[in-house]
This record gives sequence, C-alpha cells and structure tokens, in this order.
Amino acid sequence: MIKRHICVVVASRANYGRIKSALTAIRSHPELELQLVVGASALLSRYGPAINVIRADGFEPVACPYFVVEGENPTTMAKSTGLGIVELSSVFENLKPDIVLTVADRHETLSTAVAATYMNIPLAHTQGGEVTGSIDESVRHAITKLAHIHFPATVESKERLIRLGEEPETVFCTGCPALDIVVQTETRMDVDLFRKYGGVGPEFDLSRGFLLVVQHPVTTEYGSGREQVRETLEAVRELNRPTVWLWPNVDAGSDEVSAEIRRFREQYPRSPYLHFFKNFSPEDYVKVLASSRCIVGNSSSGIREGALLGTPCVNVGSRQQGRERGLNVVDADYDRRSILAAVQRQCEHGRYAPDYRFGDGHAGARIADCLASVQPRLQKRITY
Amino acid sequence: MIKRHICVVVASRANYGRIKSALTAIRSHPELELQLVVGASALLSRYGPAINVIRADGFEPVACPYFVVEGENPTTMAKSTGLGIVELSSVFENLKPDIVLTVADRHETLSTAVAATYMNIPLAHTQGGEVTGSIDESVRHAITKLAHIHFPATVESKERLIRLGEEPETVFCTGCPALDIVVQTETRMDVDLFRKYGGVGPEFDLSRGFLLVVQHPVTTEYGSGREQVRETLEAVRELNRPTVWLWPNVDAGSDEVSAEIRRFREQYPRSPYLHFFKNFSPEDYVKVLASSRCIVGNSSSGIREGALLGTPCVNVGSRQQGRERGLNVVDADYDRRSILAAVQRQCEHGRYAPDYRFGDGHAGARIADCLASVQPRLQKRITY
Amino acid sequence: MIKRHICVVVASRANYGRIKSALTAIRSHPELELQLVVGASALLSRYGPAINVIRADGFEPVACPYFVVEGENPTTMAKSTGLGIVELSSVFENLKPDIVLTVADRHETLSTAVAATYMNIPLAHTQGGEVTGSIDESVRHAITKLAHIHFPATVESKERLIRLGEEPETVFCTGCPALDIVVQTETRMDVDLFRKYGGVGPEFDLSRGFLLVVQHPVTTEYGSGREQVRETLEAVRELNRPTVWLWPNVDAGSDEVSAEIRRFREQYPRSPYLHFFKNFSPEDYVKVLASSRCIVGNSSSGIREGALLGTPCVNVGSRQQGRERGLNVVDADYDRRSILAAVQRQCEHGRYAPDYRFGDGHAGARIADCLASVQPRLQKRITY
Amino acid sequence: MIKRHICVVVASRANYGRIKSALTAIRSHPELELQLVVGASALLSRYGPAINVIRADGFEPVACPYFVVEGENPTTMAKSTGLGIVELSSVFENLKPDIVLTVADRHETLSTAVAATYMNIPLAHTQGGEVTGSIDESVRHAITKLAHIHFPATVESKERLIRLGEEPETVFCTGCPALDIVVQTETRMDVDLFRKYGGVGPEFDLSRGFLLVVQHPVTTEYGSGREQVRETLEAVRELNRPTVWLWPNVDAGSDEVSAEIRRFREQYPRSPYLHFFKNFSPEDYVKVLASSRCIVGNSSSGIREGALLGTPCVNVGSRQQGRERGLNVVDADYDRRSILAAVQRQCEHGRYAPDYRFGDGHAGARIADCLASVQPRLQKRITY
Repeated sequence: MIKRHICVVVASRANYGRIKSALTAIRSHPELELQLVVGASALLSRYGPAINVIRADGFEPVACPYFVVEGENPTTMAKSTGLGIVELSSVFENLKPDIVLTVADRHETLSTAVAATYMNIPLAHTQGGEVTGSIDESVRHAITKLAHIHFPATVESKERLIRLGEEPETVFCTGCPALDIVVQTETRMDVDLFRKYGGVGPEFDLSRGFLLVVQHPVTTEYGSGREQVRETLEAVRELNRPTVWLWPNVDAGSDEVSAEIRRFREQYPRSPYLHFFKNFSPEDYVKVLASSRCIVGNSSSGIREGALLGTPCVNVGSRQQGRERGLNVVDADYDRRSILAAVQRQCEHGRYAPDYRFGDGHAGARIADCLASVQPRLQKRITY
Repeated sequence: MIKRHICVVVASRANYGRIKSALTAIRSHPELELQLVVGASALLSRYGPAINVIRADGFEPVACPYFVVEGENPTTMAKSTGLGIVELSSVFENLKPDIVLTVADRHETLSTAVAATYMNIPLAHTQGGEVTGSIDESVRHAITKLAHIHFPATVESKERLIRLGEEPETVFCTGCPALDIVVQTETRMDVDLFRKYGGVGPEFDLSRGFLLVVQHPVTTEYGSGREQVRETLEAVRELNRPTVWLWPNVDAGSDEVSAEIRRFREQYPRSPYLHFFKNFSPEDYVKVLASSRCIVGNSSSGIREGALLGTPCVNVGSRQQGRERGLNVVDADYDRRSILAAVQRQCEHGRYAPDYRFGDGHAGARIADCLASVQPRLQKRITY
Repeated sequence: MIKRHICVVVASRANYGRIKSALTAIRSHPELELQLVVGASALLSRYGPAINVIRADGFEPVACPYFVVEGENPTTMAKSTGLGIVELSSVFENLKPDIVLTVADRHETLSTAVAATYMNIPLAHTQGGEVTGSIDESVRHAITKLAHIHFPATVESKERLIRLGEEPETVFCTGCPALDIVVQTETRMDVDLFRKYGGVGPEFDLSRGFLLVVQHPVTTEYGSGREQVRETLEAVRELNRPTVWLWPNVDAGSDEVSAEIRRFREQYPRSPYLHFFKNFSPEDYVKVLASSRCIVGNSSSGIREGALLGTPCVNVGSRQQGRERGLNVVDADYDRRSILAAVQRQCEHGRYAPDYRFGDGHAGARIADCLASVQPRLQKRITY
Repeated sequence: MIKRHICVVVASRANYGRIKSALTAIRSHPELELQLVVGASALLSRYGPAINVIRADGFEPVACPYFVVEGENPTTMAKSTGLGIVELSSVFENLKPDIVLTVADRHETLSTAVAATYMNIPLAHTQGGEVTGSIDESVRHAITKLAHIHFPATVESKERLIRLGEEPETVFCTGCPALDIVVQTETRMDVDLFRKYGGVGPEFDLSRGFLLVVQHPVTTEYGSGREQVRETLEAVRELNRPTVWLWPNVDAGSDEVSAEIRRFREQYPRSPYLHFFKNFSPEDYVKVLASSRCIVGNSSSGIREGALLGTPCVNVGSRQQGRERGLNVVDADYDRRSILAAVQRQCEHGRYAPDYRFGDGHAGARIADCLASVQPRLQKRITY
C-alpha cells in the first residue's frame, strides 16, 4: 500500500505541544507516513531548544531549516516569514508530501502555508476559527483562507470557519491536540523542575502552591512591552508568593520583555519567590499548570488547557481578546493593581470544574484518521 | 502640514493598469505623499518592462527591488513570494510609510501584505472580495484577512468582504481604478501598435477588426498549460482572422505557455493573422480591447474592462470561474471546438451595451480621498 | 567500506561540460559516492535546460535548487550569489558531503565555495590559477583562497596557485575535464543540429564549413554589451558565411546582448547565413567546434578546447585578456573591421596543430583518484 | 564640487573599533561624503548593540539591514553571509556609492565584498594581508582577491598583499585605524565600568589591577568551544584575581562558548573575582586593555593594540596562529596549566615597551586622503 506522506512543520516550542498527539497518531497510522520538519526557533538554544524535547520523545525530523532572522522586532519578524518561505519551499520540493499540516497562527505557520499552497500541496490547518488579539488574529484567518482542510478545536471555531466561506465538508471539529496531552498526563507534580530544567532564581517547595506566569509580547503593541510586563512583575512582587515564570516566545518584542525581566532581576536580585524557566516538555507544562494556584499573563494555555484543568486564570491585556473561554478566566488590564486584585480573587476562588469545550483527548487520532481519508480539492472556492 | 505617506507597490504590468489612476490621484492630493515602489516582474525586460511605461507616465519610483526567482514553476513562485517579503521589509523600513496600498491578488501582492502587516503598517487593498479560480482565489481572500482598509470594485465584492468578517466601516466600495482608464481614454485605435510596440509576426490593418487573445497559465492546473493554450492557438488558426496576442504574466506555468506558443510559431511560421506583443500601456490596452471584435482567453480584463466597453468576451477555462460578470461574457472549455464556436457566436452578436458594475471612472479619486481621511486600527478583529 | 561522499554543484550549461568527465569518474570510482546537485541556470528553460542533457547522460541529481534572481544585471548577479549561499547551505546540511567540488569561476561557483567553507566542508576547485578579464578574474582567485584542494588545468596555472600562497601538496595539475570530452569525442559532424536542437534561423549545409560565434557579456563592462555584440554581428553580416551562433550565458548583461541580437534579427530577418542555438550537449559542442572554420567571440572554449582541436580562434575584447593560450588564437577589438580582418586571416590560415597544454584526456580520472586519497586540512594557512 | 560617496559597512562591534577613526576622517574630509551602513550583529541587543555606541559618537547610519540568521553554527554563518549579500545589494543600489569600504575578515565583510564587486563598485579593504587561524584566514585573503584598494596595517601585510598578486600601486600601508584610538585615548581608567556598562558579576576595584579575558569561538574547530573556554575559565578560577571578561562575538560556536560560561557561573555562583561585560565603546576598551595586568584569550586586540600599549598578552589556541606580533605575546594551549603558567609569567614580567608596527595613530586620515584621490580600476588583473 502506498502511504500518504504527511509533512508537519513544527517551528516553535509552543507549536510542539499543540500538535504532539497528532504527530504520534500520524506516526502510528497504517496509511500515513510522517515527515516531521523542525525549524526556526524550535532549534535555537537560547529559547531552550524544543528540538531536544522532540527527539527525546522519539521523533526524528527529516529536515531542520534555520530561518529566524535575529532582531525580534517587526521588521525581522517579516523577514523571518519570508526566509521561511524560501527555506520551506526547498524542503517541500525534496519531500514531495501529499499533505502539509500547519499549526495555529505564528509567522512560521504562515511561511508553511504560503509555501505549500503556491506549490499546489494541499494544506491542513489546526486552530483555525479562533479569535484573539495580536497579529496572530490576522494571520490565523489568512491561513484559513489558504488552507484546504481545517481542524478547528471547538464547535464555535468550526462555525466561524464556515461563516468565513470555507466549504463545510472541509471543516472537521476535532478538538485541540494540546488537550489530548492534558487528558493523558498524570497531573501530579512528580518531577523536580529545578533539577530537570535548571532556570534561574531561588528554588522553593512547589507542593505548597505557586503562581505560574507566561506573558508574551503583543506584536501589534510593539514598543509597549517593557511597561506591560513591568506591571505584571510588580504585581508578582507584591503578591510575594512562589512563582514559576516561563520565558516568552521569539516574536517582535520578546527582546523588550526579556530586557525588562532582566532589569527587574537586577533591581531585586534576591527575590525569594521568583524562578525563571525557558522551556518545559508539553507534559511537564501540564503538570505545572495543573498544580499552579493561578496562571497569570496572556498565554492561550491559561484559557484552553486551563479550562479543562480548572486552573484559575488571570488574562492580562489584549493578546487573548475575543477568545472563546470558560468560567476560569478573569481579565485584567496592564496595571499592577488590576492584576493583583484579579489574582487574589482567583486564588480565593480556587479551582474550577473542568470544561471540555477545547477537546476531549482524542484530537490527534481524529486528525490522523481524517488525513488518511480526506480527498482535498486543490482549487479552493469561497462558498458565497 | 504633515502629509500622509502612502506607499504603493506595483510589481507587474497587470498591477499597474489596475492602480494607475489611484497613483495619479494620490500624487496630486494635497494631504498625501506618494511613495511608489516598482519591483519584481515590472522590472524585467523579457516581459516588456512596465517600469518604462510607468516612468513615461511621469512616475519616479523610490525603490526598485528585484525579487523574481527564475523558474516559473510552483516552487519558484513560492520562493519569489518569500524573497519579496525579505526585500519589501527593507524598503518599508527605509520609507516608513503611514499606509501601504497593495493591488489585487498576485504573489507580489501577498509579499507586500505580509511585510506590511508584520511591520505594523496599516494595509490597504484593492480588488478584495472578488471570486476567481487559480491560486489567486486563495491569496486574495488571505490578503483581505490581513488588510485594514478595503477598496472593493463592486457592491457584490463589498458585501462579500463584510461576510468575510471585515468591519463595514473599513470597506469602501470605490470601483476599480482600471475602469477609470477606460472611462478617460479615447478608445479609437489611434496608435500604430506595430511601430510603438514591435512584437513578432505579420502586420495587418487593425481598423478592419481583429481578435484579442490573452491567456495566462492557471497555477492550480500547473502542468496542463501547454495543452490548454494549444486549444486556443488551434481555434485561432481555424478562425484565421487578424489576431493580437498578448504574452502571459510571469507565473508558475508561463514558461509552458510560452514554449507552446513558440512551438506553434515554428510549426506555422507564416501565419498571416497572428501578431504577438509583450506589453501595452494601460491606455493602449484599452484602445486594443475597445477595438477588438472579441477578447478570448482568461484575462480578467475581458470581464471587467470588457463589461464597460461592451466588448464580447470568450472566457476559457477555470481561471475566472465564479467571477462576477456582465452579459458580454460567454464561457468555453479548454477545447478548440468550444472556443471556435463561442468566438463565432460573439462576433456575430457584436458589441454589448456598457455595464458600469466594476466602476464609474472615479475610483482613483475616491481611494485617494479615503486614504487621506481614514483612521486605520492596527489590531484587527473579526466581526463574528 | 565507507565511501567518501563527493558533492558536485553544476549550475550552468558551461559548468557541465567542464566537469562531466570528472562526474563519470567519480560515479564509477569504488571509493567515492557522487552527490550531484544541479541548480541555478542549469534548470532554466530559456537557456536550453542543461538538466535535460545531464539526465540524458544518466546522472540523477540529488537536489535541484533554484536561485537565479531574474534581472541579468549587476545587482541581481549579487543577489543570486547570496540566495545561492542560502539554498546551498541547506543542501549541504542535508547531504553532509565529505568534500564539495566546485567548477571554475561563475557566481554559482562562489556561492558553492562560500557555503562549503563556512560549513567546514573541504572544498575542491577546478580551473584555479587561470587568468582572464571580467569579474570572473577576481572571483576565481577568491575561490582559490577559500579552497582546500586545487585541480588546475595547466602547469602555468599550478605555478600561479603556488605563488598565490597555496600549499604545493594541495595543488594537483590534472588537466581540464573539458578536454577529456574533446579527446573522447568523435569529432566528425555526424548529428543534424537543426533537427536535434531546433534554434532559430535558416538551415544550411554544415559539411561545407561554417563559423561559430559565442559572445558573452563582460560583467565589468556592463552597459556596453549592445555595442560590443553589434560589432560582431556586423562583422558576421559582412562575412556572409554560414554561422552557428550560440546564445550567451546568464550573467549581468546577457539581457543587453540578447536584446541586440534580437534587434539585429528583426533588422535583417532573412539573413540566410545565421542560425541561433541555445545549448548543445558537451559532445555535440566539441563536434561543432571541431568542424567550424573559426570560432569568434570571447568564450574560453575557443582558446582551451580550440587549442587541442586546432580550431582557429578570433578572441574579441577583454573577457579572455591575460589567458594562457596556444598559437590558434588571434585577438580582435570590439570593432567590426578588426573582427572581420582577423576572421579572414584565420580562415586563410586554416587549422592549427593540436596543443595539449590544457589537458591530455585523463583529467576526470585523475580528479576522482585524488578525491579518494587526499587528506584535506580544514584550517588553511598561507605559505608566506 | 561633487564629493565622492564612500559607503562603509559596520556589521559588528569589533568592526566599529577597527574603522572608527577612518569614519571620522571620511566624514570631515572636504572631498568625501560618508554613507555609513550599520547592520547584522551591530544591531542586536544581546551582544550589547554597537549601534548605540555608534550613534552616541555622532554617526547616523543611512541604512540598518538585519541579516543575522540565528543559530550560531556553521550552517547559519553561511546563511547569514548569503542573506547579507541579498540585503547589502539593495542598500548599494539605493546609495550608489563611488567606493565601498569593508573591514577585516568577518562574514559580513565577505557579504559586503561580494555584493560590491558583482555590482561593479570599487572595493576598499582594511587589514588585508594579515595571517591568523579560523575561517577568517581564508575569508581575508579571498576578500583581498576581490578588493580594488588595500589598506594594510603593517609593512609585512603590505608585502604579503603584493606577493598575492595585487598591483603595488593599489596597496597603501596606512596602519590600522584601531591603533589611532589607542594613540588618541587617555588610557587612565577614568570610567566606572560597572555603572556605565552593567554586566553581571561582582564589582571590584579596577585600580588595583585585573585580568582581561576575551575568548572567541574558533569556527574551524566548531564543536570544541566548550572545552576550550572551560580551560580558560578554570585557569581564571585558580588565578583568583579580579577579571573583566568580555562576551564573545556572534560566530559559529559563540553559543557553545556562552553556554559553557553560563554553566561555570551556575557552578561557581559566588566567584568574587569575575565580572562579565557585553560591550565597551572602542575608547573604553582601550582603557580596559591599557589598565589590565594581562589580556588572556584569542582576541587580536591583545596582539595588535596590546603591542602599542605594552600590555602583556597570553594568546590561547589557534585563532591567532601565524599572526605578526611583538614581544608582548606568549602562547598557551587550550590547557588550564598552560594558561595559568603563561599568565603568571606575564604578570611577573609586567608591561612591555610600546611597539608601533600596527600603526602610528594616523591610519584614519591616510585612508580618507587615499579614498579621495585614488583612481580605482574596476577590472582587476593578477600581476603574475
């Protein structure tokens, strides 16, 4: 039997967690052959190279293209997107996949989508139809208009894709693969994060409750990153509780966020409550999220994985604006008072009941099955 | 007074005719400063360099980036898109425009859109909301999802943009600038095309009626270009009427189309009826279209400019499938019989009444006025 | 036994003839594994794609990167060099060759050299130590300073490489592989060029003697190409003998040369003596050169292959200035009188005695043997 | 009077110090117009952005191209070189300089050289003719073969350039501009480095003597960087003296060097003697070098600036192998014992007499004068 070749491009640590269970399902599917490409910031050591985690999970990439143009500003973000298309088109020319699968809404995702569609390779896309802030909002919907097969996470997203003019028979509501990991992971904190991941800052007893902070730059508010993260840092300082802080993604503005964090650390070198990590494996991230008293910042994981885990979430600023959500989310402005109050409220409330709207744990398998059977039509046509 | 800087990227001969009247209006608008960028295939001599026509019209570009990766296949089309982003991001970094204006749906249009939006520069877009075949169909709607300001040509397109989730107050139905040229041009054939543009093939008396053929490759049917154009060539041979044939765009597959045309010319070296041109100025193209008995092929101009001029149009194949149209259009398959019959029918029918659905001649001025007054919001948000 | 992997990059039709016998010898060497990369203008149809000739010879490339940025001017020549490095570094990363072999002095040759040396892959180079005009002169010596293993064609070149500070034990005087083809080819004109290669222009009886013209643009005299080729065209017109004209390489200025040729053809459409070809296989080129009364222009083949074949050569202008040569070469200025007189003189003289200075027919085998045994040292050090 | 436009590309912090006095002299020369381009790692914040120092010195760049492809390995070093050519060719096309001046031997220097020479812009080059280890050795001589005007620092280098076949009248022994700064700077340590530059590690009294360490990765020994720097770190630990350590350049392997430094810091978090800085202004670097007891590592500044200042230098490993030197240099292997012994010996010896072989303080002025009067010939020709 000739297997279908499914090429998946994983280009950042965030992407890996959101597609891992689908990779596993594709790899073990009898009618599919996985062509895993790991590139861009997933290869870079200063972000804690996701490639190591991926290899440790038993996946061997067939190509590892570098295409991050350093600078972390809007110009280099554009350039990285362009260079990504140049590199990925050569990768696809070599691999000749039957379908390319791209994840979510980052610039590498767009590079993947543009290269595949101009090369007449059917494009599948996860997480289409979601709504957020940042340039990701525009990019996600643009990718939807390029993609031939859609794997939205929720019913609401599926309906939005259809309203966007996608043909209903190309839209498969599978749930999000990131949620598969949540369902499959033993959420007890049974790893020693400090030993396994190092990081900087003091160690503390994680079993006694801690805050988790993940705050990315907002590309469309480039230039305000320092003040924005400063507010969160100050709120955390006043909260004075053990806090696990995860380093931001590589995006326009991550430099300013990182610089402000460093400045804070120099200003308060002996903060006994604050430890910074670069990267966790997807499973360990679930443990951290499940064990935390509250997740603070603007990561989608607080809203999505947080819903299923029932972890209270304080969502800061505009990055997740408009996103579908469960009851576990409280909003806060870029303002230390507002953040402080929201975190205190959430800690008092405690955990929420699990909400399965973003996935039931079987997304990866559904995606693989669909990739094996779908008959994509290369020529797209809007439905209205 | 500080003028708004409007950067317009013209990257192919087709784009120029579709934006020229807007360029003129922007240049002469008291509150606007035009930053004209001419790049990609508009610079290349083998397509009859549009840059010469542009300069002859009195426009002086501020940058002329080269970014066509030669090969004319799907892979190099992707690569050109990527290299275009790399080059245009440097151009925008230099020029620091207030708004970038991009035209229609070619790969250079996408490069422009991606560079501008990642760089947080508000993006305006013409010809959004139209429906066609080819990869252009996907790319056009993807650009819509990136753009902040929309200048659709027709009411139907405007409504489609709003259904696509664009905020109604960002959608301005201006008509198409290409139609401005039609309205403003004296349509009598008062130029000697053979003297002015050279080309290859015999000369004939244009005043006695002729066919116009423009047939581009269809990127999503890459590999079928030779047979497709062969059918049109054979139909033209049987028609045996004076024919003006315009060379195709640089796109994946233009190579195969060109090669088949060359093969035909070698096979029938003395065809007395067939003359090939590379390029006309937009105004001269209007004259040619207005004077022709029928336009044959898959150029949008047969449908759009043809509607206003009342020129009969035989639309071949899938490239314009789904496009809004007037009464002047008859479809034909990639089949010499089908094309022959349709052309004969159209020639018998003769000219149609003018149809103003694609523009009334004031699109350029409306676009300039709007660019001067609009307050774009950088953070997009889908309306549903 | 573990074979050494030898990656050879062939990026233009000219390069192929200059390395073919080495490719054959590497492929059949028991200790070597050939990794053939065919890219850049060798893939482009408008130059008569060398890839077809290569495949017909039984070579299957492992990668075919596109990296010609269209424009044929100094700026795009630089850009193509840069894009070539970007593409070839990914190719080398995939292939992980033990040695990279690069040919002569074109911009793709430099791309290959830069990518390999920065990637710590030992670089072998043919045709080092030769002297010419054009940018090739600078580029060739620059590549010598990057290369770890040298395969010069002549004793004079070998000595020049050593004077350039290369360690003598890394310099192997092998002869030029292009001469292997000359020695191995039956030089009788036993193919019907018109049937096999098409081309444009009238057909004539090749057995009765003809001129061969090959005139490339001179990159360092960019902007003068039209006048330069015009002089040769006019000389050929006055000579009024059957002439085989081979289209120029893709280089800065090839566009102006081509345009002038086209203009000439339109001016004199019925020249009964002039036929243009795009490309020959290396063997057929040898037949053409061996059968011609005189080769005119600035191709190195007139000097190098011409020496061994004894074909009279009229070398026009500065492109081959300073090149080692035998007795068969007469120089002419860019001047129709000068060219005309020189051709007439050469035709009167007739063939010369063979001169083996550029090779004895065993270069390919020597190169393969050397690649199998050499122990390259990665860290270069100038000898003085 | 029409001024000559001199475009200088500064692409790393190291380059800036080596050309600054020439920039000043060009800017103030009545017949010259400076076009300063600052790009690549000179823009990147994690290396302490040289652009800030450059702007603080009153220079305003006319273009700031980004072209570092992140990864810091041999593959991305090649890619950065290629992307640099793509970006710089657009910069030169915009600026249309009369001469491009490039500095020393880094990959950005090669990008500059390749772009300029293919674009037929005369290329001037400083620091040609020097001998070292690393890929810089090959690249420096390759650039010499591309350059039209040479500004070597020493008589020995001048003679080597002539032996390399450069025409003597194009070789001007000017001394090195880096030495101008040494001559012009008040060498007393009158700045508070800790206040001005931050950095990490404890503060100590610089007036009481300290070691300076600068150790870059050796690209041709990629993969050995960790062990190499470990030996130096261990030697410094045993020496237990106040030490100013300057972060390495962005090169293949800087990542491994940085990682090992970080590991050391985590292992010995309270080392009271070791402070790390990212960047100094050229003048402050002179003060640091002049005030240090001994410079350790493999920076050329220990040999070149060190000669004039009489600072004892312990040169570790192969990076400077073969370099011309004065009496102040002692070699050491990548071995803690060897380094330790050499540093102790040098500290006992104390300062050396000044040696002016690398420059007398007037290089910048000589370079500017020469750029104003030289008549470069575009077509190079080797002299033998």
